[in-house]
Amino acid sequence: MKQKLHFESNHPIAQYKAFEAIKKEQGVVGYYDLPEQDITPIMAYCEEISEEIETVVVVGIGGSSLGAKAVYEFLKPTTKLKRKLYFIETTDPIALRMIFKEIEIEKTHFIVTSKSGTTIETFAAYKYILTLQPNASAYTFITDPDSPLEKYAREIGAYLLNLPSNVGGRFSVLSVVGLAPLALCGIDIKTLLAGAKHVKVSFFDQGYLQEPMLKKAVYYAKNHWQYDINCIFAYSESLKYFTEWYVQLWGESLGKHQRHSSFHLGLTPIGLIGPKDQHSFLQLLADGTRNKTITFIKIDDFEDDMMIPDVSLPHLESLDTINNLSFATLINMQCDSVIESLLAEKNIPVDIITLPKADVHSIGSLIFYFELITSLVAELMDVNAYDQPGVESGKKILKNKLNAR
Amino acid sequence: MKQKLHFESNHPIAQYKAFEAIKKEQGVVGYYDLPEQDITPIMAYCEEISEEIETVVVVGIGGSSLGAKAVYEFLKPTTKLKRKLYFIETTDPIALRMIFKEIEIEKTHFIVTSKSGTTIETFAAYKYILTLQPNASAYTFITDPDSPLEKYAREIGAYLLNLPSNVGGRFSVLSVVGLAPLALCGIDIKTLLAGAKHVKVSFFDQGYLQEPMLKKAVYYAKNHWQYDINCIFAYSESLKYFTEWYVQLWGESLGKHQRHSSFHLGLTPIGLIGPKDQHSFLQLLADGTRNKTITFIKIDDFEDDMMIPDVSLPHLESLDTINNLSFATLINMQCDSVIESLLAEKNIPVDIITLPKADVHSIGSLIFYFELITSLVAELMDVNAYDQPGVESGKKILKNKLNAR
Repeated sequence: MKQKLHFESNHPIAQYKAFEAIKKEQGVVGYYDLPEQDITPIMAYCEEISEEIETVVVVGIGGSSLGAKAVYEFLKPTTKLKRKLYFIETTDPIALRMIFKEIEIEKTHFIVTSKSGTTIETFAAYKYILTLQPNASAYTFITDPDSPLEKYAREIGAYLLNLPSNVGGRFSVLSVVGLAPLALCGIDIKTLLAGAKHVKVSFFDQGYLQEPMLKKAVYYAKNHWQYDINCIFAYSESLKYFTEWYVQLWGESLGKHQRHSSFHLGLTPIGLIGPKDQHSFLQLLADGTRNKTITFIKIDDFEDDMMIPDVSLPHLESLDTINNLSFATLINMQCDSVIESLLAEKNIPVDIITLPKADVHSIGSLIFYFELITSLVAELMDVNAYDQPGVESGKKILKNKLNAR
Repeated sequence: MKQKLHFESNHPIAQYKAFEAIKKEQGVVGYYDLPEQDITPIMAYCEEISEEIETVVVVGIGGSSLGAKAVYEFLKPTTKLKRKLYFIETTDPIALRMIFKEIEIEKTHFIVTSKSGTTIETFAAYKYILTLQPNASAYTFITDPDSPLEKYAREIGAYLLNLPSNVGGRFSVLSVVGLAPLALCGIDIKTLLAGAKHVKVSFFDQGYLQEPMLKKAVYYAKNHWQYDINCIFAYSESLKYFTEWYVQLWGESLGKHQRHSSFHLGLTPIGLIGPKDQHSFLQLLADGTRNKTITFIKIDDFEDDMMIPDVSLPHLESLDTINNLSFATLINMQCDSVIESLLAEKNIPVDIITLPKADVHSIGSLIFYFELITSLVAELMDVNAYDQPGVESGKKILKNKLNAR
């Protein structure tokens, strides 16, 4: 992947400090080690799942589903998949019914993922599914070591996989949480990790990504009062769910009280898809308040030769300029045109990430890139990237309501 | 629908002025008249489309697709539909191939919608589709009266429908732009318009919605420098695409230069879905910068009896509190708990919209409610809600690139 910044950022001391702080997190914060993990146990687990299983359903919410969904949906259109993957991540009965209509229970394996082992939404759905499929061998549970859910899984004799307890939910896509369902669908998780490793090495070993990533992180942190909205604008429909993963990662990691002050901080993430959102959000980017940074994501080579044919339409001859153009060329020309138009404005910080292809290595790289940038910005803003204290109060209120009924 | 504000707003003069300004727009701005339109021509048009057509594809982008998609996706799970509806709203070749794989060309009718009649994305796709289906009777064109596209449609003998030229793209869902594809799918557009009319009458004729809507609009406009992000947090998966429609409506209408100043203004829209985004965005709402208003949207009666069964899981007995609860009750308890937790914080302006059911009347109401609020806030912020000058520069650059190749 390539990374180009279109804004000035030159603060070597802050860059140095951020880099040193992040280096120290290695070995403590678990996600840094995931690219080098041994995937033999996951591949062995996959071998145990019957060939007759055609569908995998992840029952999980937030960090338990968004990562696998991002990778799966990105690769689905261009990859030969072994199984279909669904996600049950709601308590909305209408949405649940829709999913149950689509799957054939007997040919489905359920992966129930809950780091804490007590997620309300996940267990509401799981208890319902149990009435349809009581057989323990149809289930895999993914949870922290020694959680009550681990004990339950052992007791009923279901499959059990542990994620390292120092890997947070929203940083867990490259752990067994994401890898197990993806591998079951035939996705090449070895190359996924190689993509992540590529970014890791480049960043930590003074490769070509180190300087732009540090500069970007320092710029975002230094200017967070002005630019408190960070958009990614991806010119690929397949990155739609990647943007949802990014929204959780960024919003939940960076929206919180500062460690050493009483300030409420927070960088607000927004995911946009081009060219669609040129007809929706672009007006606000171009003419609205100057409080948004924009990271464009492009696919360099779509490996696709679909062409706009050489057809001239009466009264619409002005549109002949697109004839004989490939769609892949057109979408990238659209992206470049929007970038140029925004760079012509003042005070809109733009940077561009270019992925070589729409493949598994690229998405692995992209994931690790955003995880690293998140950790860097958190460090520079003096917030803890790895907790989410703000969601506890709503959970407690719900618990009281449930106990009171 | 019900509307409840959990913030103080008492500015009778501003409310009065906004109301008077909006009243004056009637007859000039076209969307206000749509609830009373005569749908006989649309129903007659639907009769002309062959019963053998099983799929309708809208080829259009932005205002030409988002509205119909919002309504269709909201009703799809609970409505008996006559035909399937797809949307081609991209130039991404990978996404286009996915759609063409799913549809059977011979049983498909294409509705090509472009207000201006020259939208690049729409015609790139249309030219390609022409190579698969050259028969003019397989196409309906929706465009402004007297556009070049109207001339083209007449010349080839395709179906032609006009939208009123004073109805802007993002305010066009209740015009033929949304109604034609929805009616073709068997959706009850009469009741859709009745839902809109309900809000219109309540607002303009001093009904129960007038005061809270004016108060909310004044609050948003008066505090736009502090609260420059407006979230809707909908507790229904089916409102996912409604939030995308809202993002365009709000962002493109309110993100621009003030009429009488050189200020860049802009309220940033964000769409959230519960309970999923409790595990993603909620942390930022609860602990992040106090720059966000939140409008919760609830479905009062899901008309669904799916239950969490009375199952106790060993080691997980703490989860027995959800047993014998309907999913519909649970999701609304979750919503209420999050609302309570946010109201306990300071400086988070919350309001709640409750829809009686997940039905066509409700979505019609919701659409008109958000259109009205958008017009009101624009008036109070001194911006023109109905143009989008900021997107022109990117279009020009693309045109030059296309001419230069």
